[in-house]
Amino acid sequence: MHAGFYGREPRNVPELELVIVGAGAAGLSAAIYAALMEINFVVVDAEQGGGLMTLAKTIENMPGVSGKRGPELTQTLIEQLERNGARVRTFEPAQELRFARGDLAVQTSRNAYRPKCVIIATGLELLGLREEYGVEGEREWLGKGVSYCAECDAPLFRGKSVLVAGNPFDAFVLARVAAQVTYLGPVPEEFRSQVPREILEANDIDYIEGDLQRLEGGTVLEAAVIDGVRRPCDGVFISRRKAGTEIYADAGLKLSRDGFIETNRAMETNIEGVFAAGDITGEPWQISKSVGEGAVACLSAFRFLTGRRMRNLGWALQDEWEQAGI
Amino acid sequence: MHAGFYGREPRNVPELELVIVGAGAAGLSAAIYAALMEINFVVVDAEQGGGLMTLAKTIENMPGVSGKRGPELTQTLIEQLERNGARVRTFEPAQELRFARGDLAVQTSRNAYRPKCVIIATGLELLGLREEYGVEGEREWLGKGVSYCAECDAPLFRGKSVLVAGNPFDAFVLARVAAQVTYLGPVPEEFRSQVPREILEANDIDYIEGDLQRLEGGTVLEAAVIDGVRRPCDGVFISRRKAGTEIYADAGLKLSRDGFIETNRAMETNIEGVFAAGDITGEPWQISKSVGEGAVACLSAFRFLTGRRMRNLGWALQDEWEQAGI
Repeated sequence: MHAGFYGREPRNVPELELVIVGAGAAGLSAAIYAALMEINFVVVDAEQGGGLMTLAKTIENMPGVSGKRGPELTQTLIEQLERNGARVRTFEPAQELRFARGDLAVQTSRNAYRPKCVIIATGLELLGLREEYGVEGEREWLGKGVSYCAECDAPLFRGKSVLVAGNPFDAFVLARVAAQVTYLGPVPEEFRSQVPREILEANDIDYIEGDLQRLEGGTVLEAAVIDGVRRPCDGVFISRRKAGTEIYADAGLKLSRDGFIETNRAMETNIEGVFAAGDITGEPWQISKSVGEGAVACLSAFRFLTGRRMRNLGWALQDEWEQAGI
Repeated sequence: MHAGFYGREPRNVPELELVIVGAGAAGLSAAIYAALMEINFVVVDAEQGGGLMTLAKTIENMPGVSGKRGPELTQTLIEQLERNGARVRTFEPAQELRFARGDLAVQTSRNAYRPKCVIIATGLELLGLREEYGVEGEREWLGKGVSYCAECDAPLFRGKSVLVAGNPFDAFVLARVAAQVTYLGPVPEEFRSQVPREILEANDIDYIEGDLQRLEGGTVLEAAVIDGVRRPCDGVFISRRKAGTEIYADAGLKLSRDGFIETNRAMETNIEGVFAAGDITGEPWQISKSVGEGAVACLSAFRFLTGRRMRNLGWALQDEWEQAGI
């Protein structure tokens, strides 16, 4: 019935146990665990897998994996998955989720899955990548001076000159390593009470106000044009991120105030059998966090599946186990 | 004053900002981030670093790092740290912690540190490694058939025959991949209500009772002797783990029911400025979880340090920021 759709088909487990939605760092990590543990699963991705990780020029801050380029690490993870007998179902976006108690349904562009549990790992949308939000030149020098993640890319700008627009905390992160940090104000409303302009200046961060009109450069970024004035810089940090969580709210998942899927430390959401991992669960945006959360989500799913099989055998499990999470 | 003790000494930050206690997967991950972000820190380890990771024969389940041996991954992490200008202070165990509000002290065998924040990443104690708990042959075939972590090592026993003593959930994990799983009862008291013997048998797990007397083998494990009877097997899984958390409880840290340090998803403990990461925060025991948590703990510490500097500048931060965590 679903045969051929599964990541792998283990012995004695005919039913589809798990659907992993999204194959970025978190989804691939969960899938590798699922394959190793012989869970009967599929992993789908709206595109070709890898998510935002594929945009990383050099990954310096993933412990154990340093110096790789983003697409290279993506390939390593996909190969690790395939070596364990599973593969990503690419270009198969999830379109609708229905999470009734004990009856989960994932409708993608191609299939209607009815798994026993679900891991959501669809990551972030980068608004900067949408035409309507981008500054002229933003896409052109993305990864060559333009960055969306100060905590990820700060080390690449040691001793350099950077401009920060958006989240003022990015400026503090960069002030540790960069030779010169300029914050382009005004500070957005949501941060103004926390980080007024004076605080930035007290931390050796230059403060200017103006309109970022376009970026300029050659093979790498060289300058930003603000109100008609060309300001040389090596890096521009722009934070305009959001999670595309509308379909999850519609499915009944509890979201945090800033729009991410809420989980506990076992990566359980408010719906039984539904787990989440990676950037979609909130900051910080780190590959290592995503990989760790993918692993935990899959092990929690495994425990959920085990508990479910016990219940099917007629055992009323005690509250401790039900509530223990992992 | 502490000069020379620091992992690194950044510009304009004379004070010791962070002490990382423990240099296993979580502590090394936190240290790599701390070095990249130019935090003024030290990382101490009671031994030579690497923690339980050094016991892993082959690491199959760390996404992005597959096929490495445990000591090899340890070396990779240590080199990554050193490339960023820091090093582990080895054979320097923490002996006493005093966490007064706004006044943290870490006393090690060699130094008295007064950092602004602390990350605890001291991992698990494996009771099996203590002479007094071990079965004859347990140390000899550790990593050659003897394992303490079903979720970690299950993939190495695909199609093989294994014996499980201790946590009955390990038997479920192994039943997915191994050809034959035998659980050595009786089921310990703490699991008996959750996993009675009948549940094991209903899941194709053989159930026997007896006393595990010794292990036998050549280059790898070959058999377990139970009540004088030699039972051939490829693997023996023993779960006897505990966190050595007494000194943390004494320091006022809140522990979970099973004795681990409680944290939220930002890896904050109940004490301001004190974070925890890795196995010491509870299951699952996974390198990927530890690495992710180390990263998150360090970024949370960084935000804490930033907030602290703001407070020093006389700013009363709003509740949102105080409570937002990361």
